[in-house]
Amino acid sequence: MAALKHLLDFEGWRRSEVESLLETARLMEEVLERPMKKVPALKGFTIATVFFEPSTRTKTSFELAAKRMSADVVSFAVSGSSLSKGESYKDTLLTLQAMVLDAYVIRSPVAGMAHQAAGWLRGSVINAGDGRRAHPTQALLDAYTLLDELSQLEGKKIAIVGDIAHSRVARSNAELLPLLGADVWAAGPVGLLPEVLKGARLTSNLAEALSDADAVMVLRLQKERMQDGSLPSIREYISEYQITAERMNLARPGALLLHPGPMNRDLELAGTLAEGSHSRVERQVRAGEAVRMAVLYHLLVGRAA
Amino acid sequence: MAALKHLLDFEGWRRSEVESLLETARLMEEVLERPMKKVPALKGFTIATVFFEPSTRTKTSFELAAKRMSADVVSFAVSGSSLSKGESYKDTLLTLQAMVLDAYVIRSPVAGMAHQAAGWLRGSVINAGDGRRAHPTQALLDAYTLLDELSQLEGKKIAIVGDIAHSRVARSNAELLPLLGADVWAAGPVGLLPEVLKGARLTSNLAEALSDADAVMVLRLQKERMQDGSLPSIREYISEYQITAERMNLARPGALLLHPGPMNRDLELAGTLAEGSHSRVERQVRAGEAVRMAVLYHLLVGRAA
Amino acid sequence: MAALKHLLDFEGWRRSEVESLLETARLMEEVLERPMKKVPALKGFTIATVFFEPSTRTKTSFELAAKRMSADVVSFAVSGSSLSKGESYKDTLLTLQAMVLDAYVIRSPVAGMAHQAAGWLRGSVINAGDGRRAHPTQALLDAYTLLDELSQLEGKKIAIVGDIAHSRVARSNAELLPLLGADVWAAGPVGLLPEVLKGARLTSNLAEALSDADAVMVLRLQKERMQDGSLPSIREYISEYQITAERMNLARPGALLLHPGPMNRDLELAGTLAEGSHSRVERQVRAGEAVRMAVLYHLLVGRAA
Repeated sequence: MAALKHLLDFEGWRRSEVESLLETARLMEEVLERPMKKVPALKGFTIATVFFEPSTRTKTSFELAAKRMSADVVSFAVSGSSLSKGESYKDTLLTLQAMVLDAYVIRSPVAGMAHQAAGWLRGSVINAGDGRRAHPTQALLDAYTLLDELSQLEGKKIAIVGDIAHSRVARSNAELLPLLGADVWAAGPVGLLPEVLKGARLTSNLAEALSDADAVMVLRLQKERMQDGSLPSIREYISEYQITAERMNLARPGALLLHPGPMNRDLELAGTLAEGSHSRVERQVRAGEAVRMAVLYHLLVGRAA
Repeated sequence: MAALKHLLDFEGWRRSEVESLLETARLMEEVLERPMKKVPALKGFTIATVFFEPSTRTKTSFELAAKRMSADVVSFAVSGSSLSKGESYKDTLLTLQAMVLDAYVIRSPVAGMAHQAAGWLRGSVINAGDGRRAHPTQALLDAYTLLDELSQLEGKKIAIVGDIAHSRVARSNAELLPLLGADVWAAGPVGLLPEVLKGARLTSNLAEALSDADAVMVLRLQKERMQDGSLPSIREYISEYQITAERMNLARPGALLLHPGPMNRDLELAGTLAEGSHSRVERQVRAGEAVRMAVLYHLLVGRAA
Repeated sequence: MAALKHLLDFEGWRRSEVESLLETARLMEEVLERPMKKVPALKGFTIATVFFEPSTRTKTSFELAAKRMSADVVSFAVSGSSLSKGESYKDTLLTLQAMVLDAYVIRSPVAGMAHQAAGWLRGSVINAGDGRRAHPTQALLDAYTLLDELSQLEGKKIAIVGDIAHSRVARSNAELLPLLGADVWAAGPVGLLPEVLKGARLTSNLAEALSDADAVMVLRLQKERMQDGSLPSIREYISEYQITAERMNLARPGALLLHPGPMNRDLELAGTLAEGSHSRVERQVRAGEAVRMAVLYHLLVGRAA
């Protein structure tokens, strides 16, 4: 297997590489089940979380993953940083690099930023979300959660529902899940669908997407976006696209319900579903821990192997 | 002794349990006196500080306590977090739980939040302040500071002075100190007294509360609260309730002066008293370190014993 | 060599002390070149970064330095802290001291704050910038970067260019570099020159300062300061004082270009110079890591030696 240095998106990734990463994640989850949830695997490594957009959940997940592997972590937050003084992204990242870090977990509102950073920096770059473009560890944790119960994704139908056009979660899942054999559908109101989404079939017909689906992935709706006149009102969205218990019945019995969080209960999904038997929302977060430990391990130590 | 899982308030606590905890705190303070102020007791444990209200002092104190026991710490701050995107307290906490943490130090403006959290979470919950309700580690460090010099609290008179109605510090001390035998008085202007404070005698007569007191605990006054027409003006408060050197003379010679900090010098107390011979304000902060180490140890490791 | 407890500025420092510190920094940089960039030198020590002014770069640099020496770090940020509730600097620092910390890295907008803190606190104080007064670790990393290539500073001409009057970087360099034998010039528009700068020759004649210089240190320009009517407009500044490739030709061939960062590209210096052959900007950041490790080591462990 070729050594992977960065995780930017899944372009060029082979199925075997993804499977190997998910296999490592499974071993990492075993660590999380021990009384002593810490391993020395990354002792002496230093990892920076560089968040140009706020995100406590993803940031905390990465920091925990790093600490459980005994790495040191520094958090480079934007607020109060020199970026607000007009420093460029590049200068900020080069400054961090000069502090001799081993890996950079980068989130930014700019699509393609992680790729640029990988060109600028000597260490490993992990894309923790770049604009609408990609959020690969989210897709990996989704795949991990799905595989946990479906055993394999070959021929499985996965429906992604909501604001497809603006979602890096949708984009990364549409890239990753077909690599594992899944049949991905993406549904939402016309105004929230992109013209094309590589790896997925697009439809504004929710029933078509949900029909016999093995899993339904509901996206977070950005309320502020619904002000735009070309889009449905929140009331219309709820009436036509909210995932309810009835609509879940269109999917296979026991279909899995995923959501990247944080949820707007009673907006994109009926609040009661979040705790219901379909929901794997907490499972996803835990999978995220294991997956991020595996990613750090593969990029930093797996390289030498 | 029954194993304690959470520290929410002192309801149901037995005197022996409090004494055992304070005894452990004494051992922890010995650690703080060593050149190497660190023990491996909580190696492999991960503790989250979850502050829905800002408080650098208490947060730093808990983080230090955890690090000195070799635990890993993640800080989940509200600002920039998903809570600001409308996520509920419960969803935030369940997300953290799915990251497999061992203990949650929670501060929130909502009374009863720590109790609710203890119902939702599998790990230990430590209440670091919930609205006006409780702030148990503050009361423990106050008790520790008092016992340090008074040896025991049986029959000792402790006067709490200030904005009793809105104070979780007053409430927790009125719960804890009588359990150790103390006689607790709470004094303040009528508009800042609650109708009842379990464990304490209420009075608007400051002299009555201070008379022959073994210790005076001055509360922080929230200036913004004094705008309310039913309350005294700041000038009136100072004239009638500020703790001055003269008023300290009403207490026993050598009476101890406590304040939970941060102080408004020359408002609730004469500024010079803060550094005077009565003051134990710095002693309290150091006691807080030892007490918080003991609490983490009892809840996480003491359980197994 | 006398044991050093604090690093406030270079008053009273002997050349041999500075050289010894820079020698330790060289050993620390070797650590940064190893696969395992971590040493146990400060295990069990706890260091607080106390930033009353935002500065992600310097703060991160100190935190990394401490972690690489295996120290524990707590960050006491101002935002949301009790200082915003009106607590004084002194009370804030005494509170931290009561938590039994070993060293305090302090930045504040108040000139002289680090000296005051050294009087209040029992631990070591490291000045990370106090108003316009001093920023000694910046000067040390500048000296380290210069010595790296110039071997020694005896008789070397160093030109500092920009807003000299408001710069703690200029002030600390003018104090340190002459101690090592350098000839320091400080140039800028009359409105941005102080009346006197101990250790440096002041001039508004940029060419005079640059002529045959071995190194040019460009300061960051605070745009907001240029609104003042007595100062040149930004356009005038650029035209007369911006460091360009042509102006660098006034200095010696191969002269070094330094900047404390973050840079305003195309304001105080031509953007292309930042990546050009003269630039040592990234080298400075890396030197900062090594120098800060050395400072922490000298103050905390060197004392016993």
